[in-house]
Amino acid sequence: MTQLEAYITENEGRFLEDLKGWLRIPSISTLPEHAADIWRAAQYAVDQLTVIGFERARLIETSGHPLVYGEWLKAPGKPTLLVYGHYDVQPVDPVDLWHTPPFEPTIRGDNLYCRGACDDKGQTMLVFKALESLMTVNGTLPVNVRVLIEGEEEAGGESIEHYVKTHPERLGCDVVLICDTGMPAKDLPALIYGLRGIIYTEVEVRGAKRDLHSGEYGGIAPNPLHTLAIIIAGLKDAGGHIHIPGLYDKVRKPTTEELKFWNEDMLHINGLLLEEMGVSQFTGEAEYSPMERIWARPTLEVHGIIGGFTGEGAKMVIPAVSKAKISLRLPPDVKSEEAFMLFERRVKELAPAGVEVKVDKILGGEGVMVMPDSPPMQAAAAALKEYFGKEPIFIREGGSIPVAALFHEVLNVPVVMMGFGLPDDNLHSPNEKYSLSQFYKGIRTVASFLQRLT
Amino acid sequence: MTQLEAYITENEGRFLEDLKGWLRIPSISTLPEHAADIWRAAQYAVDQLTVIGFERARLIETSGHPLVYGEWLKAPGKPTLLVYGHYDVQPVDPVDLWHTPPFEPTIRGDNLYCRGACDDKGQTMLVFKALESLMTVNGTLPVNVRVLIEGEEEAGGESIEHYVKTHPERLGCDVVLICDTGMPAKDLPALIYGLRGIIYTEVEVRGAKRDLHSGEYGGIAPNPLHTLAIIIAGLKDAGGHIHIPGLYDKVRKPTTEELKFWNEDMLHINGLLLEEMGVSQFTGEAEYSPMERIWARPTLEVHGIIGGFTGEGAKMVIPAVSKAKISLRLPPDVKSEEAFMLFERRVKELAPAGVEVKVDKILGGEGVMVMPDSPPMQAAAAALKEYFGKEPIFIREGGSIPVAALFHEVLNVPVVMMGFGLPDDNLHSPNEKYSLSQFYKGIRTVASFLQRLT
Repeated sequence: MTQLEAYITENEGRFLEDLKGWLRIPSISTLPEHAADIWRAAQYAVDQLTVIGFERARLIETSGHPLVYGEWLKAPGKPTLLVYGHYDVQPVDPVDLWHTPPFEPTIRGDNLYCRGACDDKGQTMLVFKALESLMTVNGTLPVNVRVLIEGEEEAGGESIEHYVKTHPERLGCDVVLICDTGMPAKDLPALIYGLRGIIYTEVEVRGAKRDLHSGEYGGIAPNPLHTLAIIIAGLKDAGGHIHIPGLYDKVRKPTTEELKFWNEDMLHINGLLLEEMGVSQFTGEAEYSPMERIWARPTLEVHGIIGGFTGEGAKMVIPAVSKAKISLRLPPDVKSEEAFMLFERRVKELAPAGVEVKVDKILGGEGVMVMPDSPPMQAAAAALKEYFGKEPIFIREGGSIPVAALFHEVLNVPVVMMGFGLPDDNLHSPNEKYSLSQFYKGIRTVASFLQRLT
Repeated sequence: MTQLEAYITENEGRFLEDLKGWLRIPSISTLPEHAADIWRAAQYAVDQLTVIGFERARLIETSGHPLVYGEWLKAPGKPTLLVYGHYDVQPVDPVDLWHTPPFEPTIRGDNLYCRGACDDKGQTMLVFKALESLMTVNGTLPVNVRVLIEGEEEAGGESIEHYVKTHPERLGCDVVLICDTGMPAKDLPALIYGLRGIIYTEVEVRGAKRDLHSGEYGGIAPNPLHTLAIIIAGLKDAGGHIHIPGLYDKVRKPTTEELKFWNEDMLHINGLLLEEMGVSQFTGEAEYSPMERIWARPTLEVHGIIGGFTGEGAKMVIPAVSKAKISLRLPPDVKSEEAFMLFERRVKELAPAGVEVKVDKILGGEGVMVMPDSPPMQAAAAALKEYFGKEPIFIREGGSIPVAALFHEVLNVPVVMMGFGLPDDNLHSPNEKYSLSQFYKGIRTVASFLQRLT
């Protein structure tokens, strides 16, 4: 047993306690009443970095929630790694669906239940603990390391975007590690090399100057809810095809290798996906495999429709205004700004006469592609193989990590997305959890990754 | 000046105070927290009837809100009139759009502002005051009168339906007076001879077993909100044509006289309607005149869509369940039960594979047609001419008064719908009001109507 392995094994219990301490702070970034918790959670991360021996470990104030920064740059001639994580968490509604209180870390079996257990306090803490273990055992780190942790990942991430764009010189590095993703299964190590971008929009339709009664005006009045239905049905058909001219133009066909992998080797995932959803068939573009649809195709979803009467019973209102929240996921070659322009034009084109339509972009972020054969990716792959017993698969992910695109574009370095979450971790839902064995293996894997980066 | 006229003139101020007292009781029938107010409002009506000299004036308990009944049957050989009204009111949301508190009767100019000012406490009270005036001045009424007031008009009206169907013998009469409608303008007396029926439905769509994240499942998961958009867009096109096979089969073409009246003599109403809505053009079936669309065509409206995320900002949820509130207005020859069957079949046909769709009927009621040349209609017309200075026009109305259809069918008598509401009375909306001059003229007109019924 190496000294490093011995140290980690010996300290697993304390590592878990350090995570629990962080988890108990309800650092919900979208709720103003948790502002003090946000600061406590940020300071907790600063303290962790200080104890490890990081220098200039501190809070960086922003116009929103503070960033956490620390650096250890005492390995001249070695590459520099920038570690990213976030200390903020999602709200906990509906609270009554939680089996134990959302901010009381609770162990059941191999799992630690708590809001943030995985996303992203658990995954950030395991990187801290890999750094601590290396530093304690060796008195040094194998590479230079900067750490930048944000507190607005669940709230738009504006502050980190502003900071990275205005101070790229303070973040000079050769590679970025983001530990905020997952693996398809416990025994299936994976590295993300592609993420989709996103635009999230709000479409507002205005009809009459006031709400009207359907008995008096039904048949002659504009109905903004009906208009939204016509727009939404016109944007995407029941077969999942998006009818936005130009949107598919820049979608790059996946490589033959990718397609073979998705459509043949990953076929067994389909059953898991159906089970997770509790449905008997996939919807969407039947001419593409489910993996290709999630990872490499533009998709459009409606998230909510606002307006009119939504209580119990009957009210005969024709609302004056309605809104829909609609997002598009975009493969890396489709840029968010262009997609928004095409979307806005199409929405206005679909709107019938007699209503006013406004389209707002609530947020946008680009997709990312990192070549699997780049040295940092290969270092990560070797580390995963060491602790999970098999070669990782290289996968894309359907979600969006705007910060990954930010680092990729502004710092112009490869971004390694290596995370240890599992599909049943209930991110953003009640009973979020993190697997203890994934947490402990993650510490070892990240330590190994750092050693292989030199 | 007749004695009656003198009495009414002298007592206008008190009549208004009696109405205000009733209006101050927030008898919202759909909100359980107002259950006590419902009883107070009902008892207020009983007290009014008792003071006038009605016999057996009392509350009739039901499984819902109580009915109010009273009778005066001391005119042997004379016809019997059944008076209908309702003491319940609509909710007041959004409260912040009211210029004065919704249950504080406030006079500005010729108008009395308050929830229920018109619908229907104001219009019911004016009938009470006509009865009181006749009784006080003459010591008797010109005809026999029964009064039946309900407290669930805004909440489905189940109790009165049950009562009328099970006890028609207690309501024996020759004609019904419903004072719950309006006139197109202050100087345009009108009698309603046709009402549309209605079905109000809730369409529920179920997709995955739980809410999903659009990053992980966007492109393969069923989206119940998108399904609703497809269903709603499939039910009615942008041109207002309803695509429900069979729905138009039984729609009777209006008579040549009706069409001439609507399309030529009533053309000037179009400008008023556009102004009321604050729009520059009508939507709906362009091949029919606005009047024909509202009064004689089936129309379909969406009132609300439930599901997903409707807060500020962005949440990437694909909801597991969504619901839409959709109603159809039906001309008298289209029966509500058949329309519901056709609607349900069409909704299910429009639903794409991979979701479960359920259609519930929240309420239903038939349309009504009463011949303008029947004696009670002619009595009403003469009364209107007396106080509004010109022959009333005979119009239909786009709304639905299920209770009119109920009386029409079960009691098998003509139903006179003579009301004094105005198009800008903001029924069911913030700042509901009633014109004071309409209230006072209404008292005189109803008194005249009763004298002409003999």
